[in-house]
Amino acid sequence: MEPWRTAIATSDATGIWIRGRDLTSLMKDATFTDLIVLLHLGRLPSPGERRLLDALLIGVADHGAGAPSCAAARLAASGNRASLSAAVAAGVLAIGDDHGGAGSNCMELIAQALEAGKRDGLTPAAAAMRTVDATMAAKRRIPGLGHRVHTTDPRVKVLFEMARAEGIAGDGILFMEALEAQAAKRIKTLPMNIDGALAAILHDMGFPPPAGRFMFIIGRVAGLTAEVAEELAREKPMRIKFDVHYDGPAPEST
Amino acid sequence: MEPWRTAIATSDATGIWIRGRDLTSLMKDATFTDLIVLLHLGRLPSPGERRLLDALLIGVADHGAGAPSCAAARLAASGNRASLSAAVAAGVLAIGDDHGGAGSNCMELIAQALEAGKRDGLTPAAAAMRTVDATMAAKRRIPGLGHRVHTTDPRVKVLFEMARAEGIAGDGILFMEALEAQAAKRIKTLPMNIDGALAAILHDMGFPPPAGRFMFIIGRVAGLTAEVAEELAREKPMRIKFDVHYDGPAPEST
Amino acid sequence: MEPWRTAIATSDATGIWIRGRDLTSLMKDATFTDLIVLLHLGRLPSPGERRLLDALLIGVADHGAGAPSCAAARLAASGNRASLSAAVAAGVLAIGDDHGGAGSNCMELIAQALEAGKRDGLTPAAAAMRTVDATMAAKRRIPGLGHRVHTTDPRVKVLFEMARAEGIAGDGILFMEALEAQAAKRIKTLPMNIDGALAAILHDMGFPPPAGRFMFIIGRVAGLTAEVAEELAREKPMRIKFDVHYDGPAPEST
Amino acid sequence: MEPWRTAIATSDATGIWIRGRDLTSLMKDATFTDLIVLLHLGRLPSPGERRLLDALLIGVADHGAGAPSCAAARLAASGNRASLSAAVAAGVLAIGDDHGGAGSNCMELIAQALEAGKRDGLTPAAAAMRTVDATMAAKRRIPGLGHRVHTTDPRVKVLFEMARAEGIAGDGILFMEALEAQAAKRIKTLPMNIDGALAAILHDMGFPPPAGRFMFIIGRVAGLTAEVAEELAREKPMRIKFDVHYDGPAPEST
Repeated sequence: MEPWRTAIATSDATGIWIRGRDLTSLMKDATFTDLIVLLHLGRLPSPGERRLLDALLIGVADHGAGAPSCAAARLAASGNRASLSAAVAAGVLAIGDDHGGAGSNCMELIAQALEAGKRDGLTPAAAAMRTVDATMAAKRRIPGLGHRVHTTDPRVKVLFEMARAEGIAGDGILFMEALEAQAAKRIKTLPMNIDGALAAILHDMGFPPPAGRFMFIIGRVAGLTAEVAEELAREKPMRIKFDVHYDGPAPEST
Repeated sequence: MEPWRTAIATSDATGIWIRGRDLTSLMKDATFTDLIVLLHLGRLPSPGERRLLDALLIGVADHGAGAPSCAAARLAASGNRASLSAAVAAGVLAIGDDHGGAGSNCMELIAQALEAGKRDGLTPAAAAMRTVDATMAAKRRIPGLGHRVHTTDPRVKVLFEMARAEGIAGDGILFMEALEAQAAKRIKTLPMNIDGALAAILHDMGFPPPAGRFMFIIGRVAGLTAEVAEELAREKPMRIKFDVHYDGPAPEST
Repeated sequence: MEPWRTAIATSDATGIWIRGRDLTSLMKDATFTDLIVLLHLGRLPSPGERRLLDALLIGVADHGAGAPSCAAARLAASGNRASLSAAVAAGVLAIGDDHGGAGSNCMELIAQALEAGKRDGLTPAAAAMRTVDATMAAKRRIPGLGHRVHTTDPRVKVLFEMARAEGIAGDGILFMEALEAQAAKRIKTLPMNIDGALAAILHDMGFPPPAGRFMFIIGRVAGLTAEVAEELAREKPMRIKFDVHYDGPAPEST
Repeated sequence: MEPWRTAIATSDATGIWIRGRDLTSLMKDATFTDLIVLLHLGRLPSPGERRLLDALLIGVADHGAGAPSCAAARLAASGNRASLSAAVAAGVLAIGDDHGGAGSNCMELIAQALEAGKRDGLTPAAAAMRTVDATMAAKRRIPGLGHRVHTTDPRVKVLFEMARAEGIAGDGILFMEALEAQAAKRIKTLPMNIDGALAAILHDMGFPPPAGRFMFIIGRVAGLTAEVAEELAREKPMRIKFDVHYDGPAPEST
């Protein structure tokens, strides 16, 4: 077997290095959020970028025990109390295109629309208009827009104000705001959701599209650990009951 | 089905609250590490606690692609490139008693030994002496001590110096240092490892034992996401080959 | 890295062998259940053993969508529809000491009690009496006994009758039946559950204790795949809603 | 919360039913493979279908410890020995488009090509020709064809002969054979692999496309349980070492 190559971390008897930086120096001087940026981008963030990523990770950590990720983690803990890793992993597995995962799809949309737009000399707003045309023609949903509870997600406003105050807002935010406005004018009111805001900001910080899902996972794992801890501390094993309505073939008599 | 009860997070059309605090205020004012403490302890950390937990999470995030958690995540990504959640979860599943999980066992040891010691009027050092007696008699290994690579883990020194500088060092650190000294005197040199240091510090910050594993998971998930991102960006599907030596019954001729 | 050693499977350009047997011959002549025995015990089962293991695997495959394993799989599918593997894995992760996992604990109890009994010249029934004494003294629960729904689990009777008809019933079944009888006399009516019956039969077929969990997992994965298939075919993404009752600190005003 | 609806399984204090059939009757009269068909198709298989599905599940169960699924399961077991569920789940998570998952993609290809062909009055062979045209034009790979080790996969021949002998071979097999022949003539020799054979047979038995992945998972879980059992029985914790070559930024001096 050939050695695995990696540019992320290395260690020997004298120390550990992340992206070439001494881990003990990072422990003294950096925050966990700094390390997340270093791991993914190979550089430390500016203070403004750090604040913004802190806000993002906080924004996706948890909003209630009934979300599929939280509920799957609690169910696994309910049947398999001995394994904390298993419960957290079960929660992570519920994260996908339909729950927490729209950020990466939205980042791909932003990256492709802006790149194609740049080739054709379009502004971000014009690129957004073209995107709305295309998704309407294809009868597809637009990732990053629409919400089942909020008419305006309070987290989006906070994130965009911080991005502007920190001088980080770029074409990604312009594009997503134009997308929301165009969709409202031509389809219906589809308020930007947290996935859309996360995608715009991560794009403007230079992250590649898969980071949209990775950052959601990192933030949500913080919440999942707390959900599992509460399940184990407050509840009995197997306490979760569901009402199930069977509508299959009539049970034969035994 | 009865409603699930929870004291962690709640949300409605007007907002989201974590442990009663408004999420958008937290996004503006707190760090991700603050939120982790709030989720688990129901209060925000002091600046010194925040620095220490940042250092802890950084300390366990990654030290090389060959650790079981990182390698399992890369293998899953190699066969199942489409699912980022699956790859991260596979890495989490390799975390257990033998890899990254000793912290929670060590926290239980600390909590039990200090509590029993307190009932008998023992100092932390005397409680540690009694613990060494008991583990020697039972021929068990002592969690938190011993390391396969380092004679002294450089991360331990940094963490304990920070804990002292921030005024957070308490009985947990005293106990673990005495445990290390007693073991060296009576068994053999068994340098404290990162699990032991993590356990001592989390104990002194007031976390319950399962947090020893949860904090390792939170920190390591940051590393796992970067390992998976690199696997997908640099490598082809199914590129991982193992040399396997079959030593079972002779293959019958076909 | 040293080559991994294994005695299970090997393959080259000319063929594949399981425990030394040619895979294509097995495909022609064996059943899937035969292969499960071959993989775990290195030999093919007798016709009676095959029938009994078929009955066991059928017995644990599924009994309703609300079991933690089935519900966790459906939740993961609800949020992450694209990854069938993730949903099945989430279901597997809910299997543990409290759900489907008691079989392996019960097999360890049987193996230890019978071995210690044999050293002291005890019959299986006498070993069971001693086990009830010990668990009563330790105030522990007895694995394999007790059920939340059934007063007598209909699956147990079928399995034990089959085991007797096929001449497979041995000390494991004698021990568990004596355990049930002794517990009824001295504690309370605790009908044997499917985990206890599975443990007795797998013990009598020569499986080691971890097989108690592995066989449950193999059987249940069949059910989990059907549950996930139905979730994806019949339901919309994110359709699962929970009533959550928040009882934490009062939400601060925003 | 509304009750969950399901047509698969139901139970009460008197019994358990799968697709309306009494579970204890199934335990007496059916095989595990019968139950898999019943769970997924709502009917029991014919004897020939049972034999063929047995052969399929045997064919994908295991071919060596170095496959990503087997290796990920062993790695998880190496770090997290206490949780058998976690190790099996980690193995399942490595199953995806690139490993074991091509069957479902291939089943979608078969279903779409045959349906479109039928609308246009094409034979399966003509539909296969059109499929080769389309994939060549799109420069895509054809799922189900090509193999890294075998020039002809010995399992494919066995399966197709059994399907013909049992009278189950239908348009799916005709289509895949024509696809292989056309690809050989116009692209290069691309022998059908086990995913392609599995897809053809499951199509001809009436399974929907996702079954291509589910059946691989069911078969492979049998192998994964044996791999994990061997890891725990023969090997020490954390025994797996990888040679890792770091090629990132130069480590700074400490």
